Parts: sequence; structure tokens; C-alpha cells
Amino acid sequence: MNDQGQEFRFRHTMLLVNNLDRSVAFYTNLLGMQVVRELKEPERDGRNIAYVGYGEEGTHPVLELIEDAGNSDKPWAGHFAIAVADLPALIKKLEAARVRFALTMIKPETGMNTYVAKILDPDGFEIELTQRKGGIYS
Amino acid sequence: MNDQGQEFRFRHTMLLVNNLDRSVAFYTNLLGMQVVRELKEPERDGRNIAYVGYGEEGTHPVLELIEDAGNSDKPWAGHFAIAVADLPALIKKLEAARVRFALTMIKPETGMNTYVAKILDPDGFEIELTQRKGGIYS
Repeated sequence: MNDQGQEFRFRHTMLLVNNLDRSVAFYTNLLGMQVVRELKEPERDGRNIAYVGYGEEGTHPVLELIEDAGNSDKPWAGHFAIAVADLPALIKKLEAARVRFALTMIKPETGMNTYVAKILDPDGFEIELTQRKGGIYS
Repeated sequence: MNDQGQEFRFRHTMLLVNNLDRSVAFYTNLLGMQVVRELKEPERDGRNIAYVGYGEEGTHPVLELIEDAGNSDKPWAGHFAIAVADLPALIKKLEAARVRFALTMIKPETGMNTYVAKILDPDGFEIELTQRKGGIYS
């Protein structure tokens, strides 16, 4: 609790995707996420939605993937970042799956990261992957 | 732990902002965030960076705000979402601060949200604000 008694929590980062099945497969098969909620016939506008992440929505931030074929979304100059315990092992898996890289894995000389790489998801959204010297909770 | 022994965690969502002081003021003064880390002279490219959020970076997701005056970033069609305990009270504060609204606060008839509103940050990034029926951890 802070800010004059208010409480706040990050819930999700929303991305419009062209093909929901393709995106769900990418995030679950390659990046270890689980589908925590699906809305197959949302009342408001008929679009399919999947929530994917690393834990229950009530306590963990998730990605909200909204299918909008032929969408007007453009991968923005920003990104989202994921800490991973064993990045070299993950990289092998990503390479085998022919995932596109925005930055081939490097080993920074300074700082808190053991390894860093950047990949692109099926719609071109950038994902920063880091292996932290102190583990994923650092 | 999942995915063949891997562990993952969301670390941040990165946004390029035109004026770091302006953005930090917005997120701390109006949305109850705290600055959890600052890099005033990052080695790599000389840009100033602030990490803001609702808890320590090691356990909580944050926003990574990177100052890039005259940046090429465009607010994307996506957004990020924050749960807030008392949205009507926050709305009064946001209105007094003349924050731009993308959706005036509504009270949905169905679903898990008591109130929903959408605002724009100083660079035009959309933020969904929800007051959840079960509290912010729902």
C-alpha cells in the first residue's frame, strides 16, 4: 500500500497478434509460459484472447494476446524482458526452432547479466532474454 | 520451475520516452510507482534510464523508461494494465492533473471489473486501469 492508501499491481502487457494459435504455441513451447486464461468468444468484439505467463494472473504479470488478423499493430520500439535460468540451453532450443534473433547471445563484461540475447516473436515484437548472475530473482 | 527444468520470470516492459523527468513524475506522482533503479550515465550509449514500479525489481515487474529525446518510438496498439484498489479516487486525481483519457471510467455490467478506465501517458502510451471485484490480487 502506498500513495495515500492506494494499492496498485501490474496485470498484463497487451499485444495484438495476427494468429493466436501461432503466438500461443510460440510462448508456451519455446518460452515456458502457460495459458492461464482464454476467452474464445469475448462478448465485446468477438476477438479471441489468450493470457499467457509464468503463474496465476492474480499474482503474476501476464501477456494478453488478442487476435486481430490483419491488425494495425506495429511492433513498437520498446520490448519486454524475461529472466531465464539457463539461457544457453534456451538459445539452442530457439535456434532449432528457427526463431529470429535481434541480438545473438552475448556475454557482457560488466553488469549483472551473465548472458543476454534478443529475439523476435511471430509478429516481430522484441523480447529481451537475460541470464542474471544472481539467478532469475535478481 | 517448468519447461524441462528452466525457470522464467517477467522483468520489465520497456518504453522509450522523450523526457525522463516528465515520465518519472507521471508514474510516481499519479500512478503510485516508485523509482527502483536509475542509470544516469549508462556505459553503452549515454542514455538515462529509470526503472519504476510497485516493488523491488528482483520480485516485481517494472517499467524500464529509457530517455530518447526525439525518439522513433510510436505508441503501439497494445497497452499495459494496472489494477488499482480505488479507481474513482484515482480518477479524480488524474482529472485534476489533466491527464488524457482514452476511455472515460465505465462500470461494466458483467465480468470481474468494478470500474475500467484508460489513460495516456506523456508519450501517448495507453494504460488500462481496472478496479477488480476481488481486489487487486484477482
